[in-house]
Amino acid sequence: MKFLHERFEVRTKERFEVIDVTDKVKEFIYNNSVTNGLLSISVPHTTAAIAINEAERGLMEDIVTSIRSLFNPERAWKHNLVDNNAHAHLAATFIGNSRCVSVVNGTIQLGRWQRVLLIEMDGPRSRLIELTFVGE
Amino acid sequence: MKFLHERFEVRTKERFEVIDVTDKVKEFIYNNSVTNGLLSISVPHTTAAIAINEAERGLMEDIVTSIRSLFNPERAWKHNLVDNNAHAHLAATFIGNSRCVSVVNGTIQLGRWQRVLLIEMDGPRSRLIELTFVGE
Amino acid sequence: MKFLHERFEVRTKERFEVIDVTDKVKEFIYNNSVTNGLLSISVPHTTAAIAINEAERGLMEDIVTSIRSLFNPERAWKHNLVDNNAHAHLAATFIGNSRCVSVVNGTIQLGRWQRVLLIEMDGPRSRLIELTFVGE
Repeated sequence: MKFLHERFEVRTKERFEVIDVTDKVKEFIYNNSVTNGLLSISVPHTTAAIAINEAERGLMEDIVTSIRSLFNPERAWKHNLVDNNAHAHLAATFIGNSRCVSVVNGTIQLGRWQRVLLIEMDGPRSRLIELTFVGE
Repeated sequence: MKFLHERFEVRTKERFEVIDVTDKVKEFIYNNSVTNGLLSISVPHTTAAIAINEAERGLMEDIVTSIRSLFNPERAWKHNLVDNNAHAHLAATFIGNSRCVSVVNGTIQLGRWQRVLLIEMDGPRSRLIELTFVGE
Repeated sequence: MKFLHERFEVRTKERFEVIDVTDKVKEFIYNNSVTNGLLSISVPHTTAAIAINEAERGLMEDIVTSIRSLFNPERAWKHNLVDNNAHAHLAATFIGNSRCVSVVNGTIQLGRWQRVLLIEMDGPRSRLIELTFVGE
C-alpha cells in the first residue's frame, strides 16, 4: 500500500474568491508517481471550502453570489457576536471542506470541465490545501 | 490491496431528474467479490450531482423543487451568458459530484432508507457514474 | 493494509441539534493504533448529516437557523404527505451523510477550529455514526 500526505499554501487576495488549484493537485500525482487509488483534497479551515466544478470566470462569480444569497453575511447570525464570518462557516458546512477523487493509471479522474476549486469566504488569508493519497 | 475502477452509463430523460442507481453499485460490489474498503461513487460532470438519501417519489420531486428555489434557473447568473445552466453548476458545487461509502464483509453500508441518487440538473444527457474501490 | 469498521450510538434530544462527536472519533483512532490513511465518518440515516466545522455555540444555532431558512419545514413538500420531515431529507442531501478525513502519524488531520459535527434534523432519535478506516 502507498500512503502519501502533502500540503501546499494558497494566499487569497479577496474576502470572497474562487481559485482553481487543479494544477497543484496534478503536480502532486505526477511528482509522487502515484498510480491507482483515492485522493482526498481538503482544507483544515472552517471558513473556506473545496468543490469540484467548472473554472469559468462568470460561474466563479456566480458561486460567490449564490453563497451571499443563501447565507446573507448581513444577517444577525449568532456567531457574528464572536467573529464576523458566520456566512463563511455556514457555506463551508454545506459545501464541505474536502472532496475525494480517483486516480487511475496515474491520471486524476476529472471530467472535461471539472476543476478543483478552493472557495475563500473570509479572506484575504493564507490557506492550506492537504492532499492525502491511499492506493498503490 | 485491491483497487478497482469501473464506470457505467445512465441516460437521463428530463432536464431535472433524480435517479436511483443503487442496484448498479451493488452489482459492482457483488461482481468483483469486494470484501472490505472504501468505495467512491462519482460523476465526471459539472451539472449533475451524487447524493445519498431516500428514493421516495415525493422526496425526489422535492429535491428538484429545492434546487430550483435555491439556485433559480431564471436568475441573471453570469455563467448563463456562456451556457444556460448556471443553476446546475451551482447546485452541483454545493451537493458535490461524489460520495464515499463503506463496504464491510462484501456489503455496502447503506442504512435502511439510504439509496445512491444521481441528480440530473441539465438533461436529458448521457451521464457516466464512476466507481472506485480501495480495500481488500 | 489495515481495514477497520466501528459504529457508535448518539442519542439526540431535540428535533434540531448539532452535536460535536470529535472526541469519539479520536478515541477510535487512538484505541486502534491507526497510523496513516483515510477515515470515513458517516451516518446510515437520511434525516441527519455529518459536517466538519467549528463547535461554537452560536454557530451551532446558526446552522439550525440556516437549515430552517433554506428548507422551510412548513413548506408543502410532497414528502410531507408520507412523513413530516422533508426539510431534514433535503438538508441531508445537500450537506451529505459523510465526510472523509486524513490520519497522519496517528493524528486526525483537523484544523485548529475543525470539529466533526452530527447534525440532527428530525430528532429526538438514536443515531449511529460509522467509522471506516483504510490505510496502515
